[in-house]
Amino acid sequence: MRDVAVIGVGITPFGELWNKSLRNLFTEAALAAIDDSGVDRIQSMYVGCMSSGLFVGQEHLAALAADYLGQRHIPSTRVESACASGGLAMRLGYMEVASGMNDVVLVGGVEKMTDSTGPEATFGLGTAADQEYECYHGITFPGLYALIARAHMEKYGTTREQLAMVAVKNHKNGANNPNAQYPFEITVDGVLKSVMIADPLRILDCSPITDGAAAAILCPVDMAKKLGKPIIKVIGTGHATDTIQLCDRDDPTWLEATYLAAKQAYAMADKKPSDIDFFEVHDCFTIAEICVMEALGLVDKGKGGPAVEAGKTAIEGKFPINPSGGLKSKGHPVGATGIAQVYEIVKQFRGEAEGRQVKNARIAMTQNMGGSGASTVTHIFERE
Amino acid sequence: MRDVAVIGVGITPFGELWNKSLRNLFTEAALAAIDDSGVDRIQSMYVGCMSSGLFVGQEHLAALAADYLGQRHIPSTRVESACASGGLAMRLGYMEVASGMNDVVLVGGVEKMTDSTGPEATFGLGTAADQEYECYHGITFPGLYALIARAHMEKYGTTREQLAMVAVKNHKNGANNPNAQYPFEITVDGVLKSVMIADPLRILDCSPITDGAAAAILCPVDMAKKLGKPIIKVIGTGHATDTIQLCDRDDPTWLEATYLAAKQAYAMADKKPSDIDFFEVHDCFTIAEICVMEALGLVDKGKGGPAVEAGKTAIEGKFPINPSGGLKSKGHPVGATGIAQVYEIVKQFRGEAEGRQVKNARIAMTQNMGGSGASTVTHIFERE
Repeated sequence: MRDVAVIGVGITPFGELWNKSLRNLFTEAALAAIDDSGVDRIQSMYVGCMSSGLFVGQEHLAALAADYLGQRHIPSTRVESACASGGLAMRLGYMEVASGMNDVVLVGGVEKMTDSTGPEATFGLGTAADQEYECYHGITFPGLYALIARAHMEKYGTTREQLAMVAVKNHKNGANNPNAQYPFEITVDGVLKSVMIADPLRILDCSPITDGAAAAILCPVDMAKKLGKPIIKVIGTGHATDTIQLCDRDDPTWLEATYLAAKQAYAMADKKPSDIDFFEVHDCFTIAEICVMEALGLVDKGKGGPAVEAGKTAIEGKFPINPSGGLKSKGHPVGATGIAQVYEIVKQFRGEAEGRQVKNARIAMTQNMGGSGASTVTHIFERE
Repeated sequence: MRDVAVIGVGITPFGELWNKSLRNLFTEAALAAIDDSGVDRIQSMYVGCMSSGLFVGQEHLAALAADYLGQRHIPSTRVESACASGGLAMRLGYMEVASGMNDVVLVGGVEKMTDSTGPEATFGLGTAADQEYECYHGITFPGLYALIARAHMEKYGTTREQLAMVAVKNHKNGANNPNAQYPFEITVDGVLKSVMIADPLRILDCSPITDGAAAAILCPVDMAKKLGKPIIKVIGTGHATDTIQLCDRDDPTWLEATYLAAKQAYAMADKKPSDIDFFEVHDCFTIAEICVMEALGLVDKGKGGPAVEAGKTAIEGKFPINPSGGLKSKGHPVGATGIAQVYEIVKQFRGEAEGRQVKNARIAMTQNMGGSGASTVTHIFERE
């Protein structure tokens, strides 16, 4: 297996983009990544997308995306793992380059969600849970994460305020992200007084419905050196699954797929959690970020809330999480999120994350999760 | 890259299976493949499915499929390329084993289509075409292939009877396939008198709406030898795309993605069309099989119709096509089709294709196509 580098990244603004279609979004991000990388051709591409079928009535997305990108004829593959679709595209692109099958591979993610009505989007997102045994009973994603939050509060004493602090921290970071959907600060009091969605989660605990796309160009490290590009290596990858139903897990507060995917990536990279300078993780709800930091091994079980409260996850903290603003502030176009995490890492490593820069970052990790945690993809990157 | 073998296959009956759900179908085929292979564990899996979202309201399919297969925690990836989703799962599984990333990989395909009403299924299938620029105008898949058929007839003199002969030949083969949806013979006269769908295509020119699943187990050839399994090697793979819209192609009768994907597979396998003992190809409509045989290089452009008429594609012909009965007689659960083709090749190589056996077959090729030809995946297999 060859060493793989990320040599270019591109992204669209995230938001309610009524004047841009699914194909526009993907093409915009992909062209930006190609331009950023300086390569004049790509040999293969992967498109992460959760549900272009349900959101805009379009499947066969990889062929369409290649065609509109002016790349018809190359192999183009769509992958889906609900909200972890982007991370999965990254992993398969990595595998294709590492294996030697192709040299220059584009990995992208896209979702066009706001063309749906609210109930349609809620139904679409619900298909990441078990349609027959969970959604049938009327539960939606805020409901599933509310169950996790309530269990975490009961078991570990996590407070309502600590949950709010996740959102406050991510909005503080996102306020300096020019592509964020909600680039402004909020307060703990503001979160606590926001509209109740699924007790104990309020609207400001939830990531939004978003349109957007992101893309990256991968190639062998040897080629990146010849191109004179800064070397940002993929040094670890992990992918694991768990029960699709939340109720099937021994402990609903524990994200086993995240734990396993992280373990794989740490082992491959020969790194431990304390070696990682910052993290981009899947804060689809405030409680998710707390559970994720526990599963990644950054804190002991149940200690996520206090860690947030102590400022450990802030940009200047012990283990900065989501300098981009995370899904909460930046937005969550589900299929794009995993690649948007890679975009942030490259910007940080290049010192281009103005206003939200993590100082002297050399090693960083992404964690991208599907559904209520039934799938997770992780990557570790290193700047030479 | 390591040599890869297929060591086990499984399939469900194809048909209108109202008593089996999406997850039941996948699990049934996957367990059969695992059982057939003799391995006691798999390390990773790929699930090809076109649109579980639109057909049954379930995304995040790979995690769900792993869970219900009793394989929670392993990496599980869903891929989609419309009706070529199964072939794509095969290709990625091949890549994972060839690269050395994992040794024992399950590749499967599934589609549960008959829970939809007719119009819903037609809409779902239509999402393999360009929703904004083709479907918007009211065209459906029989309409797109009818345009191809009409152009082929005008340009090359292909006759209505020659189209019918494709269906007659495939039903003759499928009559001996115990898993076929329509295991009975039909006549040219029967096709010509069947209900008109989209002129010139009639109902008996069209593959049906089908529920079903298929799966295969891949591992390195070295491991297959240690397991004492018959060696069925993957010696070539190809994947290419074309314009999503039929009207964007210079010649609507020419399947460029099939031509390119076949060229890649032939080159990798170091084989030419005449070296291949039989083919399993994507006859979603009778005209498709004719265009495919031209793009695969079995006959010159425009000569597909006369080749069928001359019996060259029959089991005892010069280049047998679809001994399984093809999509027409066997059925076409879209995401499963590409893996069902692999199933047939393994059964033929093992001499287990009773009543439809191709004699002395050692080398065979699959061609699995998405939409009106915007994506194609090909594989070449060799029996040692």
